[in-house]
Amino acid sequence: VFQRIAIAGVGLIGGSFALAMRKAGFSGTIAGVSSTRTLDEAESLGVIDARCTLEQAAAEYDLVYLAQPISGILRSIEAIGKFLRPDSLVTDAGSTKAVIADSARKWLRSCKFIGGHPMAGKESRGVASADADLFRGRTYVLTGADLESPLTVEFVSWIERIGAIPVFLDAEEHDRTVALTSHVPQLLSTALGAMLAERELSDGQWKVAGPGLTDMTRLAMSSYEIWRDILETNHEPIESALTFYIDKLIGFRENLTSQQLRVEFESSADVARRLRTRV
Amino acid sequence: VFQRIAIAGVGLIGGSFALAMRKAGFSGTIAGVSSTRTLDEAESLGVIDARCTLEQAAAEYDLVYLAQPISGILRSIEAIGKFLRPDSLVTDAGSTKAVIADSARKWLRSCKFIGGHPMAGKESRGVASADADLFRGRTYVLTGADLESPLTVEFVSWIERIGAIPVFLDAEEHDRTVALTSHVPQLLSTALGAMLAERELSDGQWKVAGPGLTDMTRLAMSSYEIWRDILETNHEPIESALTFYIDKLIGFRENLTSQQLRVEFESSADVARRLRTRV
Repeated sequence: VFQRIAIAGVGLIGGSFALAMRKAGFSGTIAGVSSTRTLDEAESLGVIDARCTLEQAAAEYDLVYLAQPISGILRSIEAIGKFLRPDSLVTDAGSTKAVIADSARKWLRSCKFIGGHPMAGKESRGVASADADLFRGRTYVLTGADLESPLTVEFVSWIERIGAIPVFLDAEEHDRTVALTSHVPQLLSTALGAMLAERELSDGQWKVAGPGLTDMTRLAMSSYEIWRDILETNHEPIESALTFYIDKLIGFRENLTSQQLRVEFESSADVARRLRTRV
Repeated sequence: VFQRIAIAGVGLIGGSFALAMRKAGFSGTIAGVSSTRTLDEAESLGVIDARCTLEQAAAEYDLVYLAQPISGILRSIEAIGKFLRPDSLVTDAGSTKAVIADSARKWLRSCKFIGGHPMAGKESRGVASADADLFRGRTYVLTGADLESPLTVEFVSWIERIGAIPVFLDAEEHDRTVALTSHVPQLLSTALGAMLAERELSDGQWKVAGPGLTDMTRLAMSSYEIWRDILETNHEPIESALTFYIDKLIGFRENLTSQQLRVEFESSADVARRLRTRV
């Protein structure tokens, strides 16, 4: 049974996990590993009640929750391998899973690792935005879960207790899926905004833009700082999905005045409706 | 001064124009030209107070407002030319303007024509969804406006009185602009949904989809019935914008792991923020 949890990277996700665990009844210690400034803020907000180094987290805590950017998660995994107790569980909240799983296989052989990707977020970042209900009703992807391990079973039960919905996928399947459902949509939105930036519309032309364009450029406001690691660690599935998508657009361009596009509009509308009627 | 207005196509836009004119103080006759069923509904809702044929509209009304699909507008323009009085004004509410302007030049030589495109809509269609405030605060593009003509000046003043914001563009400039701000975004959304339809995701994979994908597929729910005419009458500007966009995506695909994309993310985010801070 987890008594002590260490969270590396006490931002929106790490801080929300701490608050959600507390709200779900976890009564042990929750320690943060982060910059002094972030830990001061997290402590003053009551998000954590202790602080430790990454080495201490590995050596003395039951659950090590890595909630940094992907490159930080990869550095942490490499750093903690030799300090970990065999009876601790390591997990992460990175947006891509295969590269992290590979790294865990290499550096964490002696302990349990389960990959995680909570499908939750907010427009604001940082521990000040942390929210005990951030994961409620949201999918929480778990990869490489060894459900014979009591540590893993306990972790999954906490994921349920914080209100999230565990979905088990293998790491490669997760990465191919998010390439289609998240990473390519992000690039489409960014490319749309970038095209408009280069076309230098007049003030009158800008006034023609309607709510459809607002929807299609919301993702474009995302920061490259978040996306750099995602694009780098998932570039092959993204390249493959982008190639499929580009071919589809080329087909659209060739069929603008033919009835061929009717089929595409109909199958696409079916998908859009399905996304909106999921329970 | 307009005493009698005829509206051809009493659906969401035509019906809303009738209600908006009434609310803005127009006290003359508003007649509908449409199917019997639509006119029955429009009359029972108090949207129109008379009905007439297209020939009567041309011969007896001061303002003829064409609010059909684009192909219907083109047919109406051809049909009314020989019946129109020289002191009447014809306008339309079609989503593309150059083909309609060409047709008006050909068939309506003897009377005034002003192209219109109200940037307003709703997810529901039909006269039952008509709304006197549909145009309030929304851009109303006017093309080929002859501001020396008292009829045109009166029409523009009514556009302002119904709460819309007139924006004057020439027809070709309008069409190039909406290719970028509306037609290509529609095709991007449709292509995204169509790609997902072909990838046949499992139930677990569907659960990974987040709110970003919901945003990016909202336009994909649009009906091909509306888009067929738009794509056909604006295919050249759309092809040109799609080519620019496809080249940009190809560039993205080649630079997924390079810092090159930072510039694109930043210029795109600037555009997205600008769209959200317009007055």
